[in-house]
Amino acid sequence: MIVTTIGLGLIGGSIALELKANNFADQVIGVDNNPTHQQQALALGLVDGILPLEAGLSIADLVIIATPVDVTTQLLPQILANIDGFTTVLDVGSTKSEICKIAGASPLRDRFVAAHPIAGTENTGPTAAHRGLFSNKTNIICEREKSNPQALRLVEKLFECLRMKNIYMDAAAHDKHIAYVSHLSHISSFTLGLTVLEIEKNEKTIFDMAGSGFESTVRLAKSSPEMWAPIFDQNSENLVVALDEYIHQLQQFKQVIQHREKQQAKNKMKKANDIRRVLAGIEAKKQQISPNTTNKLQSSIAHTSKK
Amino acid sequence: MIVTTIGLGLIGGSIALELKANNFADQVIGVDNNPTHQQQALALGLVDGILPLEAGLSIADLVIIATPVDVTTQLLPQILANIDGFTTVLDVGSTKSEICKIAGASPLRDRFVAAHPIAGTENTGPTAAHRGLFSNKTNIICEREKSNPQALRLVEKLFECLRMKNIYMDAAAHDKHIAYVSHLSHISSFTLGLTVLEIEKNEKTIFDMAGSGFESTVRLAKSSPEMWAPIFDQNSENLVVALDEYIHQLQQFKQVIQHREKQQAKNKMKKANDIRRVLAGIEAKKQQISPNTTNKLQSSIAHTSKK
Repeated sequence: MIVTTIGLGLIGGSIALELKANNFADQVIGVDNNPTHQQQALALGLVDGILPLEAGLSIADLVIIATPVDVTTQLLPQILANIDGFTTVLDVGSTKSEICKIAGASPLRDRFVAAHPIAGTENTGPTAAHRGLFSNKTNIICEREKSNPQALRLVEKLFECLRMKNIYMDAAAHDKHIAYVSHLSHISSFTLGLTVLEIEKNEKTIFDMAGSGFESTVRLAKSSPEMWAPIFDQNSENLVVALDEYIHQLQQFKQVIQHREKQQAKNKMKKANDIRRVLAGIEAKKQQISPNTTNKLQSSIAHTSKK
Repeated sequence: MIVTTIGLGLIGGSIALELKANNFADQVIGVDNNPTHQQQALALGLVDGILPLEAGLSIADLVIIATPVDVTTQLLPQILANIDGFTTVLDVGSTKSEICKIAGASPLRDRFVAAHPIAGTENTGPTAAHRGLFSNKTNIICEREKSNPQALRLVEKLFECLRMKNIYMDAAAHDKHIAYVSHLSHISSFTLGLTVLEIEKNEKTIFDMAGSGFESTVRLAKSSPEMWAPIFDQNSENLVVALDEYIHQLQQFKQVIQHREKQQAKNKMKKANDIRRVLAGIEAKKQQISPNTTNKLQSSIAHTSKK
């Protein structure tokens, strides 16, 4: 099977690596408008070759769109207009409503599968790509009923090959929930970075006094603006609601501290401590995805080549 | 030298472990009003014995106060009233102004050294104590001019023995700066936990959709309310200023997202990305503290026993 990956960053590059290593793809073709990324992806062995978009589409059995989500919404009509009825197209963006809406306008909607593998780091570009990024994590598939069953099954197998667990959700629910458990974390971290940089003009002090707690909460502030600005843009409505709630909670916490109500502060933190249970739940979920789940599946993948 | 450690949690317990392992202390005596912590500390070998406060003070060459900071301000007058002019008293709390003020009222102020080793995890209690917690990190000493030079030197050696770098600061500056690079991170994380727990009543969704970014930003929400409520209380004034700035920045970010000003969002994030340089600076600082710095110092520590 020939897989064409559009966008050779952390996600596109890491998927390419896994598909080659697991023989899911006979060949991975890269499409990227950044010449440096093209060269890096070739040099790092993420892809077997680089082609322009149209050529990449014409030979692909499976097309993976792994670009920033504004590029995805822009390219999607063109991609769906340039494939035949045997090609499967998959996107891996962090927003799903706008992308699904655009896909819905195409006569070949059923060749498209909307996915969001929940994985990533604060690093970007082909050099950030690595194996194991997706292992034991969750992939969300939206509007599965609108995808052709064979196309859907191929995509499900792809994520199983990445050792991910597929779950299903409608696009609106995805965007609402992800606003809280991913997008809000990023804004909280970006803003913490901005606040500290703004006030601590004397950086020497930050270097000396910042501990591992600061590093952990501010880690996501290193994330790519090119990737995140379009996500925040497309999920604007849900994110504003989440931010309103977060700001409201911060103001309440501030009041408690300002009035030195130590017991109330304790109560709030005890409530927040409940996140231990949630994080333990995430850990437990990870354990449930056995690392060997996909071995049998891989051998059942038909190595078909379209052309 | 006999060291008495008051408070056998993560910090007190971990210091005790290091001082025993490095032969800085001939004997470490633990004081803790929690019987479970007493038993755990003995069973885990953090301390050689448990004594009540007064007995622990009477035999100590060095007293380390590693309690929540409200307990520290409460105990400090009593401790300084019950030592002789040869005993050194050290506190390791995350706030310094209120503690230094209380110490300043004692005729034995010069036997006291105010310190803040910047180290910790989100875990608490004797079972969380471990070796290596302090390695290559920074210890802040406040008001060093008010401490007797021998007492100061002993405390400096103690932190060098923990492989820490000592830096010096006045108490007000410490409390102001630490509000931004530590206390604010904790509030941001506690509040993120509260917000997500509040809205996502369906926890199943959190388990499935939360990724490593969420885990990283929310990690500190697991921290101990008993430890942090008194810190926020004592540093209330600085923290309110820091929170006001953080909330202001969040509101600005929200506006940008609400009005879908993608370029402005990008600009903000690019600015926040500058935190990479700060975090790299923290890493570089760590490298500068050679792991063998303290070997020579240790052999020069006089193994004196007072009684």
